[in-house]
Amino acid sequence: MRMEDMILVSVDDHICEPPDMWQQHVPAKWKERAPRLVHKPDGSDVWLFEGKQIPNVGLNAVAGRAPEEYGMEPTALSQLRAGCYDIDARIEDMNANGVLGSLCFPSVPGFVGELFGREAKAGQRELAITMLRAYNDWHIDEWCGKYPGRFVPLAIPPIWDPEEMAREVRRVAPKGCHAVTFADTPGGLGYPSLHSEHWDPFWKACADEGTVACIHIGSGTGMNLQDPDAPVEIMIATTPATLLNCATELVFSSIFTKFPALKIALSEGGIGWIPYLLERIDYVHEHHHRWTHHEFPGGKKPSEVFREHVICCFIDDAIGVRNRDAIGIDNITWECDYPHSDTTWPNAPEILWRSLAGLSDAEIPKITWQNAVRHFQYDPFKHIPKEQCTVGALRAQAKHVDLTLVRGRGGKKPSDYARGYCTVGDIMKQMTGAFSTAFDSDARV
Amino acid sequence: MRMEDMILVSVDDHICEPPDMWQQHVPAKWKERAPRLVHKPDGSDVWLFEGKQIPNVGLNAVAGRAPEEYGMEPTALSQLRAGCYDIDARIEDMNANGVLGSLCFPSVPGFVGELFGREAKAGQRELAITMLRAYNDWHIDEWCGKYPGRFVPLAIPPIWDPEEMAREVRRVAPKGCHAVTFADTPGGLGYPSLHSEHWDPFWKACADEGTVACIHIGSGTGMNLQDPDAPVEIMIATTPATLLNCATELVFSSIFTKFPALKIALSEGGIGWIPYLLERIDYVHEHHHRWTHHEFPGGKKPSEVFREHVICCFIDDAIGVRNRDAIGIDNITWECDYPHSDTTWPNAPEILWRSLAGLSDAEIPKITWQNAVRHFQYDPFKHIPKEQCTVGALRAQAKHVDLTLVRGRGGKKPSDYARGYCTVGDIMKQMTGAFSTAFDSDARV
Repeated sequence: MRMEDMILVSVDDHICEPPDMWQQHVPAKWKERAPRLVHKPDGSDVWLFEGKQIPNVGLNAVAGRAPEEYGMEPTALSQLRAGCYDIDARIEDMNANGVLGSLCFPSVPGFVGELFGREAKAGQRELAITMLRAYNDWHIDEWCGKYPGRFVPLAIPPIWDPEEMAREVRRVAPKGCHAVTFADTPGGLGYPSLHSEHWDPFWKACADEGTVACIHIGSGTGMNLQDPDAPVEIMIATTPATLLNCATELVFSSIFTKFPALKIALSEGGIGWIPYLLERIDYVHEHHHRWTHHEFPGGKKPSEVFREHVICCFIDDAIGVRNRDAIGIDNITWECDYPHSDTTWPNAPEILWRSLAGLSDAEIPKITWQNAVRHFQYDPFKHIPKEQCTVGALRAQAKHVDLTLVRGRGGKKPSDYARGYCTVGDIMKQMTGAFSTAFDSDARV
Repeated sequence: MRMEDMILVSVDDHICEPPDMWQQHVPAKWKERAPRLVHKPDGSDVWLFEGKQIPNVGLNAVAGRAPEEYGMEPTALSQLRAGCYDIDARIEDMNANGVLGSLCFPSVPGFVGELFGREAKAGQRELAITMLRAYNDWHIDEWCGKYPGRFVPLAIPPIWDPEEMAREVRRVAPKGCHAVTFADTPGGLGYPSLHSEHWDPFWKACADEGTVACIHIGSGTGMNLQDPDAPVEIMIATTPATLLNCATELVFSSIFTKFPALKIALSEGGIGWIPYLLERIDYVHEHHHRWTHHEFPGGKKPSEVFREHVICCFIDDAIGVRNRDAIGIDNITWECDYPHSDTTWPNAPEILWRSLAGLSDAEIPKITWQNAVRHFQYDPFKHIPKEQCTVGALRAQAKHVDLTLVRGRGGKKPSDYARGYCTVGDIMKQMTGAFSTAFDSDARV
């Protein structure tokens, strides 16, 4: 097999929402209250919703910038590569990277729709569910719908109400959406834990519909923060493995016992730590179950429960690929993380190919597309002949795409670099006000 | 090589302090104020120190119990296997397990001497340093001294004062002690972080003396706790990998740049996640350093910094051993964790041998003893002929040791098992009052 012959499906990319996304899917009586993008006198863009501003139009959406400028946090859509928010440009960027399919997480609403969840908590439940449904409809019908076969649709859940979550899962499934986001630690958002029966209606709906719950890093606990003086690389390097805790919680929870058909995907967690975790949980179960009285149905080992129910993915993870037998080759998928700073775009095929050295022609497709296609009920070949889906074929369509790294696009700098390098504290100061705050009226609306 | 021919040095075991430990090493004027063990009317033992009681005489020291009773938290020395606190019995238990050498962490003072640190903070600095020095002298001269060649001495640091820490490191080094404890996240104990210059005198002393700082899981952040309803296995399984954060902090800190001779050991962290971490930190460094401006001296990669300075260990970790090339075979050591519930005692050789399947006769000794001997300046063969140090030779001396698992030793049960299995909340309730609290006067002193 040659690199050019791979078919790539990325199960973790990100959308920066375009301003017109609310036009088609909000009923007339609610239209006035939909989020809208506001251009401020200082050149920045903020989303305005219920009197609050959300300035993170493109949180860490730096694809296409020179690496020297990854730290400049975009403050306006004009500072982003168009592929971040424009569906036609996104397809061209996917083609240039040889990527056939993409599952895209939201930005402005938060990973699990917290933006709407806050309104629901404040009593505005009808507003919240209306906007959430409009978001999902836009995502499925427009973002994913315009280029059939190119996207794995991903809904956000009405996180404030498990019965409503179940209804939404069942509403979007017939539209072809078999993925929905969930939080690694719901307690981090003020909701009950994974060990509460609270979520059962949601899990049941996912199991019934064959819908995968996708748990992205940072979705409940946020980034893994250290002391403000710590170099920021520590936060960046350690955050993916925070899903080690979530994976263990899932396996030992009663979720999979109650809902044997349920599948959960860990997004942006990497895979190299999973062989360790599976050995460790088997050791702990074997070593301790006689006094804890915790058992798995049918006398299963916890590693077996993991392999039956948990899907994982990686950006660049040679050690995880090396130990694929210890993970389970049918559970491993791949991601690109476009347009965030960790992305391998536009060199994903070259970087991935390096990690896949030595794999058989039967193994490579499982990781690069077959597992994703099966788990997410995604059928690209219904729309696009398979021979047009390869890295080589897609790149051939994208020869005109400008991949020159750009400088000077602008944005907000990390704070003062007082220690000579960027610290966790510098980034925390940079992000001050990047999330929902009271609307600053010094703005052109 | 045969299993019986291995030489085993365990770099992580635990002492439950014996009552007579304060007799020889506290100056007369302070003797009255030394901690003392109090037998209470309810049959329990507590340590009494400065008006406070510390009931954890043998926190999780359950070696020798039937696994059904691992959850019964010992509340008196009489409930422990004698090897927990009696040096002669300890040697017999080591022999029965084929273990030549052992590095033992403290129990009652806390991993980094927090018991004394609290007194120092309250203004009792002379009391604190007196008791701390007495502890270290007892540990080195009596516990390790009685059986030359059988222990790797480990000091606790006067954590409240880095200059005092440096003095203690330099004081104990000529006594043959080249290991000292430190905390994974000093901020968790109210001290400055690993990124503060605060600790420099301590690191300098360690580098000068060739003393290894040993960072045990739970020493700063405690156990990795989940929701009270979570099965307790999640806490047990995930706590070792909390050192992934600490390892990353160490590598990206300026400690090793300032003190190039310094070595730090991660204790009870396991090793299977390290190949993933090393690949991840190299990716993050390569991908982000152009905007973070963080560089390593000589253009090193972070994985190289790790391999030059960080020592790791495992109890049972086949996947880490499989990937030893990606860790660095000279950094890997082994541990037994006697007498805690995760221990492989008394079957450590059999369990370890399984993980070492396929390793060469040159590789096995590195992991089982050579690395420990070199890093900790530990020379057992000065005292004991090498042929008497093997698993087979030691076990031959221990045929009389009773290894029958015992039941009914007693202790405090986890709370109510209301969910049918032991939860994190059950253990949290069980541990209520297990640490320093006001002395309960209902006691025979």
